[in-house]
Amino acid sequence: MSVSFVEVPKGSDFPLQNLPYGVFSTQSNPGKRLCVAIGNNVLDLSGVAHLYPAKVQDALKSSTLNLLMNLGHDAWHVVRTRTHELLLKNSELEHDAALVRKVIIPQKEAEMHLPADIGDYTDFYSSIHHATNVGIMFRGKENALMPNWRHIPVGYHGRASSVVVSGTPIRRPLGQTLPVEGQPPVFGACKLLDFELEMAFFVGGPGNKLGERVPVEEAWKNVFGFTLMNDWSARDIQKWEYIPLGPFTAKNLGTTISPWIIPVEALEPFIVNNFAQDPQVLPYLKHDKSFNFDINLLVSLKPELGEETLICKSNYKYLYWTAMQQIAHHTVTGCNIRSGDLMASGTISGETEDSFGSMLELSWRGTKPLQLNGNLTRKFIEDGDEIIIRGYCERNGLRIGFGECRGKVLPAIPFKK
Amino acid sequence: MSVSFVEVPKGSDFPLQNLPYGVFSTQSNPGKRLCVAIGNNVLDLSGVAHLYPAKVQDALKSSTLNLLMNLGHDAWHVVRTRTHELLLKNSELEHDAALVRKVIIPQKEAEMHLPADIGDYTDFYSSIHHATNVGIMFRGKENALMPNWRHIPVGYHGRASSVVVSGTPIRRPLGQTLPVEGQPPVFGACKLLDFELEMAFFVGGPGNKLGERVPVEEAWKNVFGFTLMNDWSARDIQKWEYIPLGPFTAKNLGTTISPWIIPVEALEPFIVNNFAQDPQVLPYLKHDKSFNFDINLLVSLKPELGEETLICKSNYKYLYWTAMQQIAHHTVTGCNIRSGDLMASGTISGETEDSFGSMLELSWRGTKPLQLNGNLTRKFIEDGDEIIIRGYCERNGLRIGFGECRGKVLPAIPFKK
Repeated sequence: MSVSFVEVPKGSDFPLQNLPYGVFSTQSNPGKRLCVAIGNNVLDLSGVAHLYPAKVQDALKSSTLNLLMNLGHDAWHVVRTRTHELLLKNSELEHDAALVRKVIIPQKEAEMHLPADIGDYTDFYSSIHHATNVGIMFRGKENALMPNWRHIPVGYHGRASSVVVSGTPIRRPLGQTLPVEGQPPVFGACKLLDFELEMAFFVGGPGNKLGERVPVEEAWKNVFGFTLMNDWSARDIQKWEYIPLGPFTAKNLGTTISPWIIPVEALEPFIVNNFAQDPQVLPYLKHDKSFNFDINLLVSLKPELGEETLICKSNYKYLYWTAMQQIAHHTVTGCNIRSGDLMASGTISGETEDSFGSMLELSWRGTKPLQLNGNLTRKFIEDGDEIIIRGYCERNGLRIGFGECRGKVLPAIPFKK
Repeated sequence: MSVSFVEVPKGSDFPLQNLPYGVFSTQSNPGKRLCVAIGNNVLDLSGVAHLYPAKVQDALKSSTLNLLMNLGHDAWHVVRTRTHELLLKNSELEHDAALVRKVIIPQKEAEMHLPADIGDYTDFYSSIHHATNVGIMFRGKENALMPNWRHIPVGYHGRASSVVVSGTPIRRPLGQTLPVEGQPPVFGACKLLDFELEMAFFVGGPGNKLGERVPVEEAWKNVFGFTLMNDWSARDIQKWEYIPLGPFTAKNLGTTISPWIIPVEALEPFIVNNFAQDPQVLPYLKHDKSFNFDINLLVSLKPELGEETLICKSNYKYLYWTAMQQIAHHTVTGCNIRSGDLMASGTISGETEDSFGSMLELSWRGTKPLQLNGNLTRKFIEDGDEIIIRGYCERNGLRIGFGECRGKVLPAIPFKK
């Protein structure tokens, strides 16, 4: 396996084969700029842009990834190949010691930002185990899956403004709930705050025009790369508000993504068969290409004064619908997608109880409290708790990691009229 | 009433008391720039920006209204007052004939664009008559209104990318529907294409931070101004997809807004009492200020080869929830709003049959075809039909108009795999 001149510690998420994109700043240079992660460092792409083909240099000097995303998959390949070349042992970059000192920066000195201006954020509901679990809880085993679920990659429009980068604290929301059916609703702090283990991809490429569709077989060209996501959810608020138009204030309190976008090319060694779909889907959703990925996903909960407990082990490959199907469906009625759009998977649960991707499922609506290290228990998330999502692919000694998606819950701000 | 040196024809939507904002370009100058409408002309604000206080000049020279929106309501008042002054008879502008020739441009030479970069688009569901009508059709009279409806200004996140300006053609969508319960779904062109008569406001002011709320009494400060909106809806697609997460591809096929944003100040003479709410709403939604407006709304349908028929006469004042309540609720869990966000009312129907704001209601699910001029009938919208929404306030000889929100339906593009 080829090796970088920048040290990559054993077990690092960020070997030369990964090269995930991010946007960072430093104390000495507060301007936002693009980078890739390599070991415990980042490579400042704005500082080496002149070493790339002319057509991508502007994109590499931008303060967000939107321009690069917009250039399309051929350009992404060019940039990735060149970055790999520059970071190899004995590269022209390594031989320019002054430049190396300028552009190789320790990750601990880099403040990470949202990697792109997110035009629109869409959340799908593509895990059959999650949809089934929620269905059993709310409608019983017989009617667990909605009749449309196996025909449509069900999704809804989310709120782009409240997507934040890993490390941003999340405030426990106030809102309206209905504690007792038939009684008036009440106002107060959310009592059933939850996480949702998700992954999301950023849309790239020129996109389609309003009124046109993205054919399913070509939809992979619009997937720039993947991040981890925590779709914070206020279950008690959601339950009262969501009929008939879907979740609204229960979800727009904040959505956390990891700072690193892993390019699809880095994930290619970990492609696995698509989930077997039964019944057959309609032709506009059918594709031959395998576009499913073996990505291990881990969720930990860290109480304010305690240590982390691993509470969930899941995998991206459990998703029933592929990203290609999600895009084809999203655009089927002519909706235009744009570079920088964020599309999330929905909660990713597996079949076994330790793979459920939310407190709602892990504690089965609060009926089975979770045991945490230090003799603590949890039904839902408490103030001071931090949720940490991690992800990685591993095969034949190659590890492609996603870094971390972290968020700590702060107490609610009391209501004053 | 004060009079402009620019001619305002009798019955014009755009007297000196209106001064709505838009973004335009001309063939000779294709750069997008801000303007206000005056009679049959526009005033090019980029060309007179130097005549305004220094702190607003950059905003007036921008290519969208976002900067001006962001400055907040004190700055909006300053700009409006100064524009009024400049357009008065005998103003310093009138006396500069060379400048007048440059900045007063016939509307027929102005191509209008989306007035702002829309960060997020939210659609509410705030008309009690509309919600009741839909409820009766789908659930019967007894359960017409959902239990949450009188407690929550129900809303959902929409798609920002597919909001387009008046005049943009709308393509009949293909999509998935379930013609026969219990049978497999089918794929094809939407058969029940509908309009929804709505109004929308653009958010202005600095907004709130994630995790903070906008108090209801202060929420008027975040309302920059109002436009007309047509929320195109594919009813057959919506019916099959919307459970449990709400409308998705049935709505993101396109949403049309009128090019003019009418400032709240221009609407102040037409403020009427808020809709009487019963039961009392929770304190976070209670406000004393009247923030309801007497705005006449008209919808016409023009078949490809026929003449217009007026099919709906409604009014903004029928809305149950105010824009202030919509904002307070939208931010109650800490969702941050930003200048340029678009928030729509939901379909505005009145009590009488001629005031229903959608074909679904007007034709009562297709059971009562509408009679059009020229011996035509319609249950839903057909290819070639153009929907034209108009709006105006009128009192004591003052007319504040909204211009037009037009969209023509093009035939579906056949599916090729």
